[in-house]
Amino acid sequence: MSFHIPCPAEVGTALTEVDTPALLLDLDAFESNLQRLDASLQGSKVRVRPHAKSHKCPEIALRQMAHGAVGVCCQKVTEAEAMVAGGIPDVMVSNQVVGHRKINRLIALAHRARVSVLVDDAANVAALGEAAAKSNVKLNVLVEVDVGANRCGIAPGEPARRLAGAVAANSHLNFRGIHAYQGAAQHVRSADERRELIDRAIDLVSATIAAIGKDGVDCEIVTGAGTGTYLLEAASNIYNEIQPGSYIFMDADYARNLGEDGKPVHSFLHSLFVWTMVMSHAKPGRIVVDAGLKALSVDSGMPLVAELGAEYLRASDEHGVLQVDDASRLPLGKKLRLIPGHCDPTVSLHDWIVGYRNDTVESVWPITARGALY
Amino acid sequence: MSFHIPCPAEVGTALTEVDTPALLLDLDAFESNLQRLDASLQGSKVRVRPHAKSHKCPEIALRQMAHGAVGVCCQKVTEAEAMVAGGIPDVMVSNQVVGHRKINRLIALAHRARVSVLVDDAANVAALGEAAAKSNVKLNVLVEVDVGANRCGIAPGEPARRLAGAVAANSHLNFRGIHAYQGAAQHVRSADERRELIDRAIDLVSATIAAIGKDGVDCEIVTGAGTGTYLLEAASNIYNEIQPGSYIFMDADYARNLGEDGKPVHSFLHSLFVWTMVMSHAKPGRIVVDAGLKALSVDSGMPLVAELGAEYLRASDEHGVLQVDDASRLPLGKKLRLIPGHCDPTVSLHDWIVGYRNDTVESVWPITARGALY
Repeated sequence: MSFHIPCPAEVGTALTEVDTPALLLDLDAFESNLQRLDASLQGSKVRVRPHAKSHKCPEIALRQMAHGAVGVCCQKVTEAEAMVAGGIPDVMVSNQVVGHRKINRLIALAHRARVSVLVDDAANVAALGEAAAKSNVKLNVLVEVDVGANRCGIAPGEPARRLAGAVAANSHLNFRGIHAYQGAAQHVRSADERRELIDRAIDLVSATIAAIGKDGVDCEIVTGAGTGTYLLEAASNIYNEIQPGSYIFMDADYARNLGEDGKPVHSFLHSLFVWTMVMSHAKPGRIVVDAGLKALSVDSGMPLVAELGAEYLRASDEHGVLQVDDASRLPLGKKLRLIPGHCDPTVSLHDWIVGYRNDTVESVWPITARGALY
Repeated sequence: MSFHIPCPAEVGTALTEVDTPALLLDLDAFESNLQRLDASLQGSKVRVRPHAKSHKCPEIALRQMAHGAVGVCCQKVTEAEAMVAGGIPDVMVSNQVVGHRKINRLIALAHRARVSVLVDDAANVAALGEAAAKSNVKLNVLVEVDVGANRCGIAPGEPARRLAGAVAANSHLNFRGIHAYQGAAQHVRSADERRELIDRAIDLVSATIAAIGKDGVDCEIVTGAGTGTYLLEAASNIYNEIQPGSYIFMDADYARNLGEDGKPVHSFLHSLFVWTMVMSHAKPGRIVVDAGLKALSVDSGMPLVAELGAEYLRASDEHGVLQVDDASRLPLGKKLRLIPGHCDPTVSLHDWIVGYRNDTVESVWPITARGALY
């Protein structure tokens, strides 16, 4: 007897009949977010390459492409494979790809789609070049520069210049430019502090472009930026590509970022929810729902409850405990929507994303790249 | 073009060639843990019903059955379906099952295997009875009693007695006994405090059994206990079934529990690891590995590094930043083992568990119930 994870809903199902816990997408809010990004960039020439790590779903990527995206970013080679299989012709693996197993997959993918990858190490440059030579493909490569995120990425200026030179000198690699993502700035609450961090990043990027240019090497692509700061990079005249991901969903944590007026900065709507059900109400003032750590990520805090008058207090593996103002409004079997604290790792817990409009299921999309860890 | 998540290894692969990030099982340590549980219960008549929520893998459940387990616990109906499909004949859904969609699946499963379920609500008892009647099956039901975990479960004593009476009075339900899991005691560090909490639970269970007995209703099964406290319940003469789950893996958090001598209490070995690779070493004293929030759960703290001289500082979605004593020992491409802070939600991020012995892959088991959220 075989077993397959069942789908929590079918097209046409009433929202109340969708099984729990499930990942819900409010299609009106999602489509509005696609439009809001476009509107926020009106007049700008910056290219948009949304980050597919947020949704892992080719159906969503195709809709981003329809809104003018030039391609997508992925974090893993297998995630990129899933996007190409789903019809996306241009994928940047915005990450280092190390070791022959992963490099060989990347090179194979470069025969089927426009593929680019980041480097921050000379030995890795050599390994990529060798694999590209063997497979007779020219691989697009960007140098990742650390502009304050303090994770991957080579130091700006001379170290980046030397590495760019190594890429440019390799006849099997195509040096395309630099990748400079200031990840540490994305969730900084104050608008002034975010601006300060991105101004500093822009200065470092400018200096690095100038250093690389001294060797006659041109940075055709300057890419980076997330949902928290993309307007700053877009206005920089230095970055020509941005990579927002979370804007389509808006998680609880991004909604805490403030603008210069001290009010929430983002006009994006919460479109992603975890649909959950009251499964126990044996305690006064408390209910237990069926979405815990295996249905939502709590690394950026507990989820918010979309319905009023309830607070998600704590998560265990398969349960969430909520404090409620009026338990009679949340009887056994009642379903409610949770706003995830952090969308990306929440999405990757689910196999399906259930799109709804007017309380009816309109789409059930597979999260094709869920589990694409390699 | 279709896409399937690739397998990180094949049987016979050298451990160093296993793709990253992957879930590894040290088979010697795993088999030793199976034996250590047996040894720790020698002379006890308590039945063992391990919790399959920890591994979600029928291959592991079958090995627990071979060690004398009477069946497994599951937290979700679909998880139970996966176990039955994998050859486990006796499954307790140690959770409330609410709503007709889930109840109908549970009832269908009861035609194919020995199935039991918990209740803490009279309306839910009626709904289960109605569905069982329609399908002409008699469903095994236990009353969940809250003995301090403060999550699901009805209050001990009279409330539990009334609910047990409702189950016993329903001709389509088979009242089997009570479920009393003191989840809040499992990770308490001090042996004295754990004993105090479990002594209190045992008292509440005894009083509840007595109350139910006044109506001539017999609690044939008294079940509960996790890896943190099972020896106490097993020695109670009140519990006759225990449900340890994590003992097969031993996560970093359980290893922090102390015994009466103030030393780590558990003799179980760490058998579960996340295999990860150094993907960037662009900063002095720091390395970046390719296992972050999508490959391991950090709800109980960061993972430990099995190899000496490194500390996992912080996790982002696809990256982990480690501080290392001697970066030259961890060059680019080097693979290392991380001990997850919390096994259960870590396992449910992966599709495969790669068993190895003597640095060679011996098994690649699907985590069949990963994503079985419903």
